[in-house]
Amino acid sequence: MAPPAKSIDDRAAVFFAELQDRITAEIEKIDGGGRFREDSWTRPAGGGGRTRVLADGNLFEKAGVGFSDVHGQLRPEMVEALPGDGLDFRATGVSLIFHPRSPRIPTVHANVRHVQHGARSWFGGGTDLTPYYVVPEDAAHFHRTLRDRCDRHDPSFYPRFKRWCDEYFFLPHRNEPRGVGGLFFDYLGAGAETTAGQPPPAASSPHESDAEAMFAFVREVGDAILAAYLPIVERRRTDVWGDRERHWQLVRRGRYVEFNLLYDRGTVFGLRTDGRVESILMSLPPEVRWEYGLLPEPGSPEAESLAAICARRDWARD
Amino acid sequence: MAPPAKSIDDRAAVFFAELQDRITAEIEKIDGGGRFREDSWTRPAGGGGRTRVLADGNLFEKAGVGFSDVHGQLRPEMVEALPGDGLDFRATGVSLIFHPRSPRIPTVHANVRHVQHGARSWFGGGTDLTPYYVVPEDAAHFHRTLRDRCDRHDPSFYPRFKRWCDEYFFLPHRNEPRGVGGLFFDYLGAGAETTAGQPPPAASSPHESDAEAMFAFVREVGDAILAAYLPIVERRRTDVWGDRERHWQLVRRGRYVEFNLLYDRGTVFGLRTDGRVESILMSLPPEVRWEYGLLPEPGSPEAESLAAICARRDWARD
Repeated sequence: MAPPAKSIDDRAAVFFAELQDRITAEIEKIDGGGRFREDSWTRPAGGGGRTRVLADGNLFEKAGVGFSDVHGQLRPEMVEALPGDGLDFRATGVSLIFHPRSPRIPTVHANVRHVQHGARSWFGGGTDLTPYYVVPEDAAHFHRTLRDRCDRHDPSFYPRFKRWCDEYFFLPHRNEPRGVGGLFFDYLGAGAETTAGQPPPAASSPHESDAEAMFAFVREVGDAILAAYLPIVERRRTDVWGDRERHWQLVRRGRYVEFNLLYDRGTVFGLRTDGRVESILMSLPPEVRWEYGLLPEPGSPEAESLAAICARRDWARD
Repeated sequence: MAPPAKSIDDRAAVFFAELQDRITAEIEKIDGGGRFREDSWTRPAGGGGRTRVLADGNLFEKAGVGFSDVHGQLRPEMVEALPGDGLDFRATGVSLIFHPRSPRIPTVHANVRHVQHGARSWFGGGTDLTPYYVVPEDAAHFHRTLRDRCDRHDPSFYPRFKRWCDEYFFLPHRNEPRGVGGLFFDYLGAGAETTAGQPPPAASSPHESDAEAMFAFVREVGDAILAAYLPIVERRRTDVWGDRERHWQLVRRGRYVEFNLLYDRGTVFGLRTDGRVESILMSLPPEVRWEYGLLPEPGSPEAESLAAICARRDWARD
């Protein structure tokens, strides 16, 4: 007798746990020195996870890759914020953020997740790149890699999810995007009318209610993260930098902190569901500066980088 | 003919502007090197201010003292959050934060303000101390100074406003108070039933609806800020410290950032009323660290300091 088929949420959890293994192994290899330290934890109200952080590596000042699979009861005020009904939820996924030591190497963030709430369940995620010094060919490589992977599933995905990313990773108080963007998507596989919270900026495709097809897409995105990012690390790892570039990096990291604490839904969701604080806030950069009224000198590489970020270009265009 | 009596909000604005002058002069004197740089600004939607920041002083790594007097129309979703009615508002006050270079000297924050919303107006404010290494006699000096000044106006003020401060400057996700507390108060002089937003933890005194009496109290608090803080600076300025103490200071400053961006009402109010971003975020420390899973060694001075903060003692008790 064949074993019973596993549910999609169980299979997603297995994929995410393995994805964490593959990513941490590749990061240790390219870093060539740092090692991830793992904390396995259980959530008193249900579920748990494995948080892995590499600190003070050769290339990475801080790299965090978290796997979690939590379940339980939502706080009543959160029920309305999500598709589905009732209090029962399960959320599983991988979140990562890499803060390189060199200001010449961009910071990258990625997340893939599966959420179940009552009778509804869906996939979400994305990845976005935050350079300190924008190199157009690097931003183009990142976006083209994502576009090519998206196009294998649906030609509407890349333009829609690129735009959603631009809208999401934006600091309204600064009127600045966080970086050069990437992909952001949510509610895939949940059915037609599931646009609670922040709706996608364009109409959804018919097969977006097909949970298996969307699981295949999310596996593609999970596999694409390092394909989009690591070639940039390889290109920039020997680029020279000094105090000036480090200073700019630390100031720009302040914007990262502002975004995550003021606006990021994952941070807010995590803190409101009594998530593990150290795992949620592992995204924060290791060292940061805030300086009052700092503006880059007009015409400087810093000013040009900021202008390139604010322009929100179509980086994938050939 | 005598000139027409000025309204209480105009007189409050004059007091706050002069308070900024006195405080910045005293801070430059004790620093003995740093100078405040002033930015005067106007708010397109109404009013303006003077932001003064001293960076890289002898004692102060960053000291910010902001005066503002802004008015205009609230965003509709904010009307409910404040006593009063309609969209018209005026808010004037002084906010300050001093980040000393030495981890032996505490950070201090203070604010005194007058807010008018429709037919209602009130005073609010407070001051709180955030030591990196708690010295009980310093915390006692800070609290006793505030208690003595409060007692001149109402014996219920110090215990109530001390408790409100403990409740307000608290990081629920860390289950940690921000520091050793001080005073926090709001809605003074507005009348009886004005407890919108966060209500005071105890019943109000009858003369709290007397705007003139509450203005006198706020002047007392404004004058008490440096009386409570500067003697601590003088006591600790020659205390030795090294890399270990600096590291702890930078990590603890991370908690300050977390509080201000996740919870602080002034920050949220400022960003939602299209306030001047650099003036609102001048409160953020100049240099900060986040380290995953950092816990002070049991029995170390850092662990003892954190325990003293979490104990929320009655520091003023003789």
